[in-house]
Amino acid sequence: MTFLSSIGEARLLDRIYARLKRQRFPFLLLGPGDDAGLLKIGSGKVLVATHDDLVEGTHFESRWADFKRLGRKLLRVNLSDLAAMGDVKPLAALATAGFPGSTPERRFQEFLEGLSADCALFKTALLGGNLVRSERVFFGLTALGEADPRFILRRSGARAGDILCGVGPLGLAGKGLSELRRGIKSGRAVRAFWEPEPQFKAARVLARSRLATSLIDNSDGLSRSAAEIARASGVSYRLDRVPIAPGNPDAGEDYGLLFGVPPRRFGRLMAALPSAYRIGIFTRRDGVSGSIQDGYDQFRQRHGR
Amino acid sequence: MTFLSSIGEARLLDRIYARLKRQRFPFLLLGPGDDAGLLKIGSGKVLVATHDDLVEGTHFESRWADFKRLGRKLLRVNLSDLAAMGDVKPLAALATAGFPGSTPERRFQEFLEGLSADCALFKTALLGGNLVRSERVFFGLTALGEADPRFILRRSGARAGDILCGVGPLGLAGKGLSELRRGIKSGRAVRAFWEPEPQFKAARVLARSRLATSLIDNSDGLSRSAAEIARASGVSYRLDRVPIAPGNPDAGEDYGLLFGVPPRRFGRLMAALPSAYRIGIFTRRDGVSGSIQDGYDQFRQRHGR
Repeated sequence: MTFLSSIGEARLLDRIYARLKRQRFPFLLLGPGDDAGLLKIGSGKVLVATHDDLVEGTHFESRWADFKRLGRKLLRVNLSDLAAMGDVKPLAALATAGFPGSTPERRFQEFLEGLSADCALFKTALLGGNLVRSERVFFGLTALGEADPRFILRRSGARAGDILCGVGPLGLAGKGLSELRRGIKSGRAVRAFWEPEPQFKAARVLARSRLATSLIDNSDGLSRSAAEIARASGVSYRLDRVPIAPGNPDAGEDYGLLFGVPPRRFGRLMAALPSAYRIGIFTRRDGVSGSIQDGYDQFRQRHGR
Repeated sequence: MTFLSSIGEARLLDRIYARLKRQRFPFLLLGPGDDAGLLKIGSGKVLVATHDDLVEGTHFESRWADFKRLGRKLLRVNLSDLAAMGDVKPLAALATAGFPGSTPERRFQEFLEGLSADCALFKTALLGGNLVRSERVFFGLTALGEADPRFILRRSGARAGDILCGVGPLGLAGKGLSELRRGIKSGRAVRAFWEPEPQFKAARVLARSRLATSLIDNSDGLSRSAAEIARASGVSYRLDRVPIAPGNPDAGEDYGLLFGVPPRRFGRLMAALPSAYRIGIFTRRDGVSGSIQDGYDQFRQRHGR
């Protein structure tokens, strides 16, 4: 018998994409496989939709979790996926929470407080959701946004020769996670783990200026996220100058952005977005480098191959 | 210390609604508290959005679950919530699945097969989602639909004197669940548990004909769903002729519809929707009958008070 742990997340996702590739609907602009899906809605706009979960035992332990911050993070990780599609304005969220009956009331209140505070902060309406009894705690959220289809950036636009760039933290959240596991509850790294900043402003610059060819968030770790762009674009990539990071940039949880920029536009990019940094380069497909099986795989639970 | 089991789902939901009542967004037409939320989108339409989960240990046991049928049910329970808003056309779904690494690959394949088969059947695009490692199996789905706002029916429209009616099965799915627990895997009741039929046609008749004043699905059980309409409408209700049911109609899982009809329109209702049946009547608010704490509460895990 074959188990999910021996197949790994990347190949499981491939099977989902393969099965759904043949979907044809007049309103379906982009199905599974990018940071978010796209639906045509009236008046020339597109609806941008994504779903992500935070699960006890995988993303946090109730032993060290702060439930107010979990509510905030739940929204932010999803908003990061909206931002990773370009110039997207968040509209609304549907949130779901699974709790055991033995959960102290305080945890429920804290979660609700954190989630609704950040919904207000990011001008996102809490549109609905679900509350369910579950033996283990889990949270899920669907974020909905809208965009002008001209300012959408997909994973699939990188070309050989494009410079691979990043913006936002690298490795800081991973450091925060190991601090939390050791009982440290505050500080810059712990805050980066709990309160990732969705990169709406940077994404807006990249999409409006037409400087970037492709865009993804690096929540699955640097190597794997770079490999996702490369695969979707039919190219390979090489890292050549990864900034010194406080923690492992392949551990994920950072929620910065990765993107490709043609070399002739790199100067303008740095002028428009001074916080961006060069990481590497996209190359012609070589069939060797940059497998999406690099980096963290939650089902395999080990690094690399 | 107070635990969620001693507060109960109904009061927890009240706290969520109370906190979110003050949300004000120009595009937010209806927030939490009905079967689905409503967002204004372009061209005079509304986006109808809902989220529901199926959780191991609460909604099914892996011991007797059929994962292909779980995939189908996951979509159907959400489509039922879209139908319970009136004349709604489903557009798309975002699905999430949590599996332990030790899950046999076959279960993942079966789930995906069932979900994608019913997405095709109900002309619903699978727009995205998430796959996550989880110590216990859980599934979540957000369903998105569109509607003309003139053909939306909320919970809150019932008036004293309206006849309380239903359409669809009552108690059959609950019977199916107890059969499954006893090892019976097929038959009419088991099928009703696994493959609830979203009541799109009946909802369309009710909304287009303007015969109904209010609408809900009865997935939380007959008494509690009737009480939800009554509470949202500021009235009470009395059951007076519940059809003989094969199982307990308060056990939930049936996914039929409940609605109010003014007495003068009852004849026309029965002509337009011959499968409908009378259950009771809405009365002036009496502060006694029809508490939403009647019926099944997943956190309290007992019936009534």
